[in-house]
Amino acid sequence: MQTFRVELGPASHPVHVGSGILGELGRLAADAGLRRGRVAVVTDANVARHHAAAAVAALEAHGFAPSLITVPAGETSKSASVLETVYSRMIEYGIDRAGAVFALGGGVVGDLAGFAAATYMRGIAVVQVPTTLVAQVDSSLGGKTAINHPRAKNIIGAFHQPRAIVADVDALTTLPDREFREGLAEVIKYGAIMDEAMIGDLERDLERILAREPAMLEAVVARSLRHKAAIVSADEHEGGLRKILNFGHTVGHALEASAGYGLYLHGEAVAIGMAAAAALSQAHAGLSADEASRLVRLIEKAGLPAGLPPAARAPQFAEALRMDKKRADDTVDFVMLERLGRAAIRRLSFEQLLSAIAS
Amino acid sequence: MQTFRVELGPASHPVHVGSGILGELGRLAADAGLRRGRVAVVTDANVARHHAAAAVAALEAHGFAPSLITVPAGETSKSASVLETVYSRMIEYGIDRAGAVFALGGGVVGDLAGFAAATYMRGIAVVQVPTTLVAQVDSSLGGKTAINHPRAKNIIGAFHQPRAIVADVDALTTLPDREFREGLAEVIKYGAIMDEAMIGDLERDLERILAREPAMLEAVVARSLRHKAAIVSADEHEGGLRKILNFGHTVGHALEASAGYGLYLHGEAVAIGMAAAAALSQAHAGLSADEASRLVRLIEKAGLPAGLPPAARAPQFAEALRMDKKRADDTVDFVMLERLGRAAIRRLSFEQLLSAIAS
Repeated sequence: MQTFRVELGPASHPVHVGSGILGELGRLAADAGLRRGRVAVVTDANVARHHAAAAVAALEAHGFAPSLITVPAGETSKSASVLETVYSRMIEYGIDRAGAVFALGGGVVGDLAGFAAATYMRGIAVVQVPTTLVAQVDSSLGGKTAINHPRAKNIIGAFHQPRAIVADVDALTTLPDREFREGLAEVIKYGAIMDEAMIGDLERDLERILAREPAMLEAVVARSLRHKAAIVSADEHEGGLRKILNFGHTVGHALEASAGYGLYLHGEAVAIGMAAAAALSQAHAGLSADEASRLVRLIEKAGLPAGLPPAARAPQFAEALRMDKKRADDTVDFVMLERLGRAAIRRLSFEQLLSAIAS
Repeated sequence: MQTFRVELGPASHPVHVGSGILGELGRLAADAGLRRGRVAVVTDANVARHHAAAAVAALEAHGFAPSLITVPAGETSKSASVLETVYSRMIEYGIDRAGAVFALGGGVVGDLAGFAAATYMRGIAVVQVPTTLVAQVDSSLGGKTAINHPRAKNIIGAFHQPRAIVADVDALTTLPDREFREGLAEVIKYGAIMDEAMIGDLERDLERILAREPAMLEAVVARSLRHKAAIVSADEHEGGLRKILNFGHTVGHALEASAGYGLYLHGEAVAIGMAAAAALSQAHAGLSADEASRLVRLIEKAGLPAGLPPAARAPQFAEALRMDKKRADDTVDFVMLERLGRAAIRRLSFEQLLSAIAS
């Protein structure tokens, strides 16, 4: 097990990454200062089948009294109505201010349960227990929580830092292949924006990672989270530096929105977005052609898409880009690479961006 | 106009109290650093009639583009469904991360609009523009926001400090008499817990306050808010000291809950609760009989109830006390007075508390 801290002043908290550590959940929660007593374990129907019993047993073994709240699997659970159900169950179960929520699952559960914890009695403790690769290397860390509104994704939310993150890489062995690969997009992202050596290590170790060797998974997840922790510590509320974590995401979000949610997994859209950003980085930030193609080859080797689909030339794509909430006037702050391992933000006009993508 | 700051580190903000300052809202908002652009003014149907036009005009005069969101008057607007309406209107109007919400109204609007701002795009600016005495002297300051759940009041919420508070005491002239008097309960509370001289001044000035002389109102509101600011600055998230603000509230909340919401206004229940707390303070904290009756006389002179109703001897009252979220095991941390102007927290068993109230 690797353990380190995310430094966030009074919101600092530990991160634990390892094989088989779901069984340690009770001890790690107690070590993080949580009161032994009534707590909620929020999970989805798929995750519940594999991991709920182990999580509950681990909590009970250390004096916690967990109540399991299972929501339907999938993005539709990030809704006001499912949130309402979670609140009701927490009230029924008598969770009080000293209680806690354990978010056991992927990004949807982390967002939903995290937001419930952020807003229940004006904020109670949440422990993130991510079970997908995307959640383990990215969404569980940083305190972003949200639900969707029928008219906009993630528009209702809060920053609410977890009291601990417990990432058991054994959970990754039950992930469908496509979901595992999408998480690699975020892993590759950290290499691209801040750790060139990581790109080399991924090139070398990719087969063993895809074979999901526990030691490899622990190393990759911990390295990714350490990178994210460094950035979030420096910029908790996304005022500046944290924006580099959006590498690949501007085009990725626009693809997701314009192609219809569900066609691409988030990580797949980000993979395409990173390849597009690499091309733009050659034109606007000095990335060499060799480095750009090295990044694209790694993306493809991970089984992820890298080419822009025809949909990216449709007007809906341009419109989705314009609607992106990071826009300022008629320009977009675009995360580029000056070289592999070094990100920089360049302001582009929409015209520049669209013409580069159309070419 | 009196202006002072609530010191809360990065969440520090100004408070303005004065006669006619609603007309300055645009300038004060710009001075607080808000971006001129699209903002929402959330208010209720009653307040809208008197003050919405003035607020909107004041904002427009300084380059803001306000959109008015009017909710029904009354506690029922602190619901998930009204909140959803507020979100929808904010999205429709294109409020973005640099936008703001102006909460123009009493405690309900402050709580609802404050919570909407706390959770829209993970938190945007809110300016509290309280128009009732309760909101001006108490609920607008401190960052507490919440909505109700069908099973519990204020259980869904967030701490979200305003970027400014603008309390125009002229708004108090249109308040129904009963609502004005209920606000005096919170005013008297500050004197009781931390400012003996204020008790004397209230005794001397009560007639002029009840006549709503603007200079008197400005003095009373500003003095109350300065006291609350001092406490909130020392204890933003109600870890300890801030609990003394609950003087009169333990019994008050139980009365509200057991007598059925709507029978007593909140301030009326608090007035009865303060009188009950004064009696308990004689038995457990050294308050003299003279001081206790001086406090009760002031409460009565303000036109507020001080005597416990027969309902306080019903089992529902005892049950409501037990359910109070400040309970720890079988005891309750009760705010008492060691003397007028000095509060202290004493832990009582429920038996002690109930027998004192029954006697």
